[in-house]
Amino acid sequence: MTTLIRNGTIVTADLTQKADILIEGGRIAAIGQGLVGDEVIDATGCYVMPGGIDPHTHLEMPFMGTYSADDFESGTRAALAGGTTMVIDFALPAPDQSLLDALKIWDNKTARAHCDYSFHMAVTGWRQQVFDEMAEVVDRGITSFKHFMAYKGALMVNDDEMFASFRRVGDLGGIAMVHAENGDVVAELSARLLAEGNTGPEAHAYSRPAQVEGEATNRAIMIADMAGVPLYVVHVSCEDSHEAIRRARQAGKRVWGEPLIQHLTLDESEYQNPDWDHAARRVMSPPFRDKRHQDSLWSGLMSGSLSCVATDHCAFTTTQKRTGIGDFTKIPNGTGGLEDRLPLLWTQGVGTGRLTPNEFVAVASTNIAKIMGLYPKKGAVLVGSDADLLIWDPEATKTISAGTQQSAIDYNVFEGLSVKGLPRVVLSRGSVAWREGAVETPEGHGEFVARAPGQPV
Amino acid sequence: MTTLIRNGTIVTADLTQKADILIEGGRIAAIGQGLVGDEVIDATGCYVMPGGIDPHTHLEMPFMGTYSADDFESGTRAALAGGTTMVIDFALPAPDQSLLDALKIWDNKTARAHCDYSFHMAVTGWRQQVFDEMAEVVDRGITSFKHFMAYKGALMVNDDEMFASFRRVGDLGGIAMVHAENGDVVAELSARLLAEGNTGPEAHAYSRPAQVEGEATNRAIMIADMAGVPLYVVHVSCEDSHEAIRRARQAGKRVWGEPLIQHLTLDESEYQNPDWDHAARRVMSPPFRDKRHQDSLWSGLMSGSLSCVATDHCAFTTTQKRTGIGDFTKIPNGTGGLEDRLPLLWTQGVGTGRLTPNEFVAVASTNIAKIMGLYPKKGAVLVGSDADLLIWDPEATKTISAGTQQSAIDYNVFEGLSVKGLPRVVLSRGSVAWREGAVETPEGHGEFVARAPGQPV
Amino acid sequence: MTTLIRNGTIVTADLTQKADILIEGGRIAAIGQGLVGDEVIDATGCYVMPGGIDPHTHLEMPFMGTYSADDFESGTRAALAGGTTMVIDFALPAPDQSLLDALKIWDNKTARAHCDYSFHMAVTGWRQQVFDEMAEVVDRGITSFKHFMAYKGALMVNDDEMFASFRRVGDLGGIAMVHAENGDVVAELSARLLAEGNTGPEAHAYSRPAQVEGEATNRAIMIADMAGVPLYVVHVSCEDSHEAIRRARQAGKRVWGEPLIQHLTLDESEYQNPDWDHAARRVMSPPFRDKRHQDSLWSGLMSGSLSCVATDHCAFTTTQKRTGIGDFTKIPNGTGGLEDRLPLLWTQGVGTGRLTPNEFVAVASTNIAKIMGLYPKKGAVLVGSDADLLIWDPEATKTISAGTQQSAIDYNVFEGLSVKGLPRVVLSRGSVAWREGAVETPEGHGEFVARAPGQPV
Amino acid sequence: MTTLIRNGTIVTADLTQKADILIEGGRIAAIGQGLVGDEVIDATGCYVMPGGIDPHTHLEMPFMGTYSADDFESGTRAALAGGTTMVIDFALPAPDQSLLDALKIWDNKTARAHCDYSFHMAVTGWRQQVFDEMAEVVDRGITSFKHFMAYKGALMVNDDEMFASFRRVGDLGGIAMVHAENGDVVAELSARLLAEGNTGPEAHAYSRPAQVEGEATNRAIMIADMAGVPLYVVHVSCEDSHEAIRRARQAGKRVWGEPLIQHLTLDESEYQNPDWDHAARRVMSPPFRDKRHQDSLWSGLMSGSLSCVATDHCAFTTTQKRTGIGDFTKIPNGTGGLEDRLPLLWTQGVGTGRLTPNEFVAVASTNIAKIMGLYPKKGAVLVGSDADLLIWDPEATKTISAGTQQSAIDYNVFEGLSVKGLPRVVLSRGSVAWREGAVETPEGHGEFVARAPGQPV
Ligand SMILES: [Zn+2]
Ligand SMILES: [Zn+2]
Ligand SMILES: [Zn+2]
Ligand SMILES: [Zn+2]
Ligand SMILES: [Zn+2]
Ligand SMILES: [Zn+2]
Ligand SMILES: [Zn+2]
Ligand SMILES: [Zn+2]
Repeated sequence: MTTLIRNGTIVTADLTQKADILIEGGRIAAIGQGLVGDEVIDATGCYVMPGGIDPHTHLEMPFMGTYSADDFESGTRAALAGGTTMVIDFALPAPDQSLLDALKIWDNKTARAHCDYSFHMAVTGWRQQVFDEMAEVVDRGITSFKHFMAYKGALMVNDDEMFASFRRVGDLGGIAMVHAENGDVVAELSARLLAEGNTGPEAHAYSRPAQVEGEATNRAIMIADMAGVPLYVVHVSCEDSHEAIRRARQAGKRVWGEPLIQHLTLDESEYQNPDWDHAARRVMSPPFRDKRHQDSLWSGLMSGSLSCVATDHCAFTTTQKRTGIGDFTKIPNGTGGLEDRLPLLWTQGVGTGRLTPNEFVAVASTNIAKIMGLYPKKGAVLVGSDADLLIWDPEATKTISAGTQQSAIDYNVFEGLSVKGLPRVVLSRGSVAWREGAVETPEGHGEFVARAPGQPV
Repeated sequence: MTTLIRNGTIVTADLTQKADILIEGGRIAAIGQGLVGDEVIDATGCYVMPGGIDPHTHLEMPFMGTYSADDFESGTRAALAGGTTMVIDFALPAPDQSLLDALKIWDNKTARAHCDYSFHMAVTGWRQQVFDEMAEVVDRGITSFKHFMAYKGALMVNDDEMFASFRRVGDLGGIAMVHAENGDVVAELSARLLAEGNTGPEAHAYSRPAQVEGEATNRAIMIADMAGVPLYVVHVSCEDSHEAIRRARQAGKRVWGEPLIQHLTLDESEYQNPDWDHAARRVMSPPFRDKRHQDSLWSGLMSGSLSCVATDHCAFTTTQKRTGIGDFTKIPNGTGGLEDRLPLLWTQGVGTGRLTPNEFVAVASTNIAKIMGLYPKKGAVLVGSDADLLIWDPEATKTISAGTQQSAIDYNVFEGLSVKGLPRVVLSRGSVAWREGAVETPEGHGEFVARAPGQPV
Repeated sequence: MTTLIRNGTIVTADLTQKADILIEGGRIAAIGQGLVGDEVIDATGCYVMPGGIDPHTHLEMPFMGTYSADDFESGTRAALAGGTTMVIDFALPAPDQSLLDALKIWDNKTARAHCDYSFHMAVTGWRQQVFDEMAEVVDRGITSFKHFMAYKGALMVNDDEMFASFRRVGDLGGIAMVHAENGDVVAELSARLLAEGNTGPEAHAYSRPAQVEGEATNRAIMIADMAGVPLYVVHVSCEDSHEAIRRARQAGKRVWGEPLIQHLTLDESEYQNPDWDHAARRVMSPPFRDKRHQDSLWSGLMSGSLSCVATDHCAFTTTQKRTGIGDFTKIPNGTGGLEDRLPLLWTQGVGTGRLTPNEFVAVASTNIAKIMGLYPKKGAVLVGSDADLLIWDPEATKTISAGTQQSAIDYNVFEGLSVKGLPRVVLSRGSVAWREGAVETPEGHGEFVARAPGQPV
Repeated sequence: MTTLIRNGTIVTADLTQKADILIEGGRIAAIGQGLVGDEVIDATGCYVMPGGIDPHTHLEMPFMGTYSADDFESGTRAALAGGTTMVIDFALPAPDQSLLDALKIWDNKTARAHCDYSFHMAVTGWRQQVFDEMAEVVDRGITSFKHFMAYKGALMVNDDEMFASFRRVGDLGGIAMVHAENGDVVAELSARLLAEGNTGPEAHAYSRPAQVEGEATNRAIMIADMAGVPLYVVHVSCEDSHEAIRRARQAGKRVWGEPLIQHLTLDESEYQNPDWDHAARRVMSPPFRDKRHQDSLWSGLMSGSLSCVATDHCAFTTTQKRTGIGDFTKIPNGTGGLEDRLPLLWTQGVGTGRLTPNEFVAVASTNIAKIMGLYPKKGAVLVGSDADLLIWDPEATKTISAGTQQSAIDYNVFEGLSVKGLPRVVLSRGSVAWREGAVETPEGHGEFVARAPGQPV
């Protein structure tokens, strides 16, 4: 059986064309005029684009005896609802846990996934076992390794550990990733703020100023350069970090920066909200910044010094957030975004003239696929590519609201924002996965996508 | 009849894959495994890439009663020999000439062209007629307009003329182009040098230092921004100009920079050669710079702040160059490069690890096609694209020499440089145009390619 | 007769010390502990600083058949009231007028000056007579030459004229100065705004955006570098211009930037005031900018990339401003500031921790004296220096108001701003020139100060 | 008894004047024309300048059971011979040693010092005792605290220790200092180089590339900013570090950079010398860099983004250097320079037009005095200042040679370089300390200079 998408305008990272798409066996079989297929999806008035890829999620992430509220079921449902057809989640071993054991645990979480997924592996400590298992992890199709420069005493690795791990990643043909904040300084500032009686959510922002992120980014870049490994900096939230990335790229280094949709659209004033819940729900690391930093992130996407837009989706309910009443360091870090990333990026990016539709596809999907070794299986509209496709209606509008969202949590940090540009139909490997507000594929439709090591873009 | 390219590795700006290409009617009909065709070209051990596009040539350009030595016959023959399957030449009206008259003259030059071509139109003066004719020029498929900020008293336009023209270009959906050097300062410095007895070719370099180019680039960018038009800066030769472009791009402006293969590979020491002929043959504007500037250009290509590599091919014989004996300002400005651009860029770019093969395709072909409104007809390996294709042998070597070149002139500025990486077969719209050292298509095979105005990349 | 300043804390650009100052014959005779003098001025609780120098005023400047409202009498009265003990005014020849004739006219204006003064000479056209007279101007002690890159059709000079003049200034050991805005672009934008019906004062700001100033600054720097002359950029109002200066200085060029107190403290929102008079009174070139530009100017003063703070004092009454009703290009350009410069700079600079008291002295007086060839006669507290001194009370406060100002105009652009830090007593060449709200020296006390050409700082 | 310096031209950081200097009681008593004194020193044809201050020396520094070869006797003799009248040496406690004990040891070394001196205190570990003793150290007049970001396992402190110490320094009104290299990365690179058989002195340079220094500088700046303390970066050797300092200063941070005379004049090619001794004698940290980095340092001095020139004088004999044969990590780090700093800086700075004589004084003496809390006791020619003065003959020349040097070692890294500009007479607190090649003051003439905490410049 074949499926035909007809009358749409195909928009990819480098091309806009009016053409039909024929799908067979989950893949794109033909692109052209006047094609014929069994099942026909009409895309009149719509753009047909590669499905979004979210390179940064934390679904069912363990935290202090509980878990982040969206698991692979509700999380990937939210993803599809917002036009994202693949997520890459982080497998997080405990500091002394086997990487392979962690991987098994994460595999187990995915049974009900609605869309395709892959993993990054976190390196949260350094010893011979980690060194050895990294090769096996790569063999299993996981080629990107995350390092935390913050969360001292928990996930954080020191410079010498990071250097050793980066070298190993480079030797294996993988990509090094960092959460870049100076953990020593954050720990000191946090302790001082608490000691001075600053216990509320706004103090979370004070404890991790932009300089702290800029410094760590700059440091990670140097270490990656010395180790000979390409570097991917997650959640770039500020000019300080962006400047370091820009400077590195200008020196010919292979470094990519990933701003989040949250940092592109929300700012630090949220933490001044007198409602503790309102502010605490926005607690994430790095925190929201001021407008000057927002401008910097957008100009990075426009000029190419920043490469991808992600969510760091890690949703906690208000009840979970309230663990941190009286001590901001105990507020679970994280916000949602999977359903809202593409509509917001389109509205505030394409709708304002900052990005062309092609650039939208690049930062929401194609660049990610290329960097992460998924291209052209994902992120492309090419013959042979997986038919992960969006039928995108640029005229559709809605107002974001927790009341109508897919996510399991009881609020939405974008509550009340209007968007113009929404997915009408979403296909995953050729099947209609989302249409008219509902998942159409069976639970567990999503599959693991293995990635091959080698030369990055 | 169909043609099949078999057993090669297709390399495009964003993809490397082992696949065959089927060509029919001058276009790519299919890409895939195990295709079948009538005529088969074996590409074993080779890369199959989009043909090079040279966005900057001056063939049969009038100069002081004579013409640049390579016309559209020898020039496009050299192009094909080096893997370039399309050139964009500059139609240069005299300051008081009708644009349409100039266009007719340029059309007439192309009768014997071996590969496809288009034109840029130069705006060398400003009056109502020019304003009016620009619309007609766009209608004829010429959407890019060149402005000279140097050559005072000849081609140069002033800021107010440039601003007016830029606004017109913007309104017509075109692209503004500039030769960026401060003509007033160049004129003063030249006069002073001559007055002081510095008449040799080395004084040409002294008369147009990098600051002079950086300033003009910065000025053109501001004027383009005020006028609301995208800007293409030709022959970016130095960090000063590159810095201005980089800064503009970081501010979200649509500006592209084009380094030449000459500035990427040769330096100012050439002008110190005691042989007058040697030095004079290298006289072009901007002049060659020092190694620091070369490094800047390469890092711009690596990081994306510079977009295209061209030649500014404008070849004069030694005899023509000697017009300037005793007065460097009378040395015809220009050097060759059409045959050597791709082999040198591959050798010194890909061969050194600075560029990936995909990035090579991007800066030699695809980016140019996108910026100039040719994509995906040109610069792509997609079904439906023109079959302008290179079968590129990465192991083939030669030493560049005037003795074996296609160009009509009696020397080669790259004489003696070794290259590794050469075209084995070159196809133009599906026909084998170059193989085993000879043109195979009939004279005049090349066609004019019209371009549509509209949104640039 | 000697005068003794006792019990104060001397603050200079590089030193803070508790010491007395003995004055004799208009000059500082001794600095030390326990000095004895005839007349004693008690400076308990005060800082004793070099008098302010305003390097940029337009007193009794001719304009469309009238004159700016403050002449050398009211202007220097306002200066003294605010702690400024010397001004440098601009002699502005008509484009075809002899420089020496202009100088004579300006000399005549100064008969009633209350404080010392010097002149800059403007070069508003280029011809042999100007070239010749410049030597005589330098001989008369005027070593700085101003060039307008804006005011097309009036004061503006083109690049070739500017280059020729800069070379002449360099040969004479002088300093080149520029008003940096691209006059061609300003003229075009102005005409377009008027044509579109934007005739109000807010359109003045739209007609000269920051890019236009940044471009011209960058161009002037290049031309000065080619001409071999140090450059002083007046009224730097924005990051664009500051960036160009910073970049030049980092390359070792001798370039200084002068922000105005207006741009440091007021912003573009003033032009949105619905009261035409309010907005028009603030019309000056360059216009006020946004907060981001303000931050840039302050950080330039803090880090040394900007050198001086001036006023560009050029006051027009509301009646004069109203000449421009219905056509913003006819609003006389200029605002006052002589009386308010130092109190505002202290309040918003020292009072906020941005500047140390020593840095305050540097940017308000000493740097100016050094750059303009007045040091250590002016700008210093050294034995032998002119006793132009401020007894500055850091605790004194007032609210700025036109009702109590010295300036002849009927409003004050800083109306309602509070300052903390005011002069208690001001000495000019050893005489108490200002005390308790009144001038104490006789009219015409001010003298011309000749300056010698030579090496700038 | 008084001393008179007659007929010279006084050059200070901000003034050049022909005047005499009268000295009484070791201090400057008067500056003026036609002064009279008991002993007269004729300075005809000479500049009279504040004596040089070297803010960075290691005299008699303990190292692997031996000591650096120049102690306070030979070291300060070399200082005087080169026009330096004060040194600031580093007291280096062992990681678990009391700061006060270390101070006592350093005090003991100074008995035979020929010129005045002070100390910086190193913080090489962090515990309550260190915290407590820092207050006592400041009380004893030592207000600057050094931190090593390199020398892992020995002197190095981690980020959290550095942050804690910086906060303490800030609270005490002191200045934080750093040796900025990423010690973790240096350790890894060193180990790898040795493992690969790179044991020679050239590997020392490979083990500490410029990026490693730039990263650490950037990190120290962030930590200082968070801790609220001014920062002094010793031995800035490269653009990477300079860029970080420049960026910080532009953001209004109080950060100073100190290039060494070695890095300003020598480059990395020294390490390629086939003579092991030649290369090993030049082993210091950071190592010499390439010409591009040299240019950056000079432009920093010219534009004010770098503030001081030092030597890091730490001299080891060839015999001592040979400890590292077969293992470059065992080569004692350090070179001499005390005698050569000023003549080389004058020759390559003033002699080439990069620096004015006033700027020479600023970076060699006055800026150091201001930053280190010595001004105007030292670094000034003001009434009341210590008469530490140079009679500098700008026409005197010599060729640097170990054969004629004061230093105790058997070579000179500047061997063979010519200098033009040498001290004729050097005064320390009014006494002629150096004249005609010999020390004239008695051994032990040098005194400790206590410094007060408080606001830096
Ligand atoms: Zn994170
Ligand atoms: Zn995360
Ligand atoms: Zn050109
Ligand atoms: Zn050209
Ligand atoms: Zn002006
Ligand atoms: Zn003015
Ligand atoms: Zn050190
Ligand atoms: Zn040291």
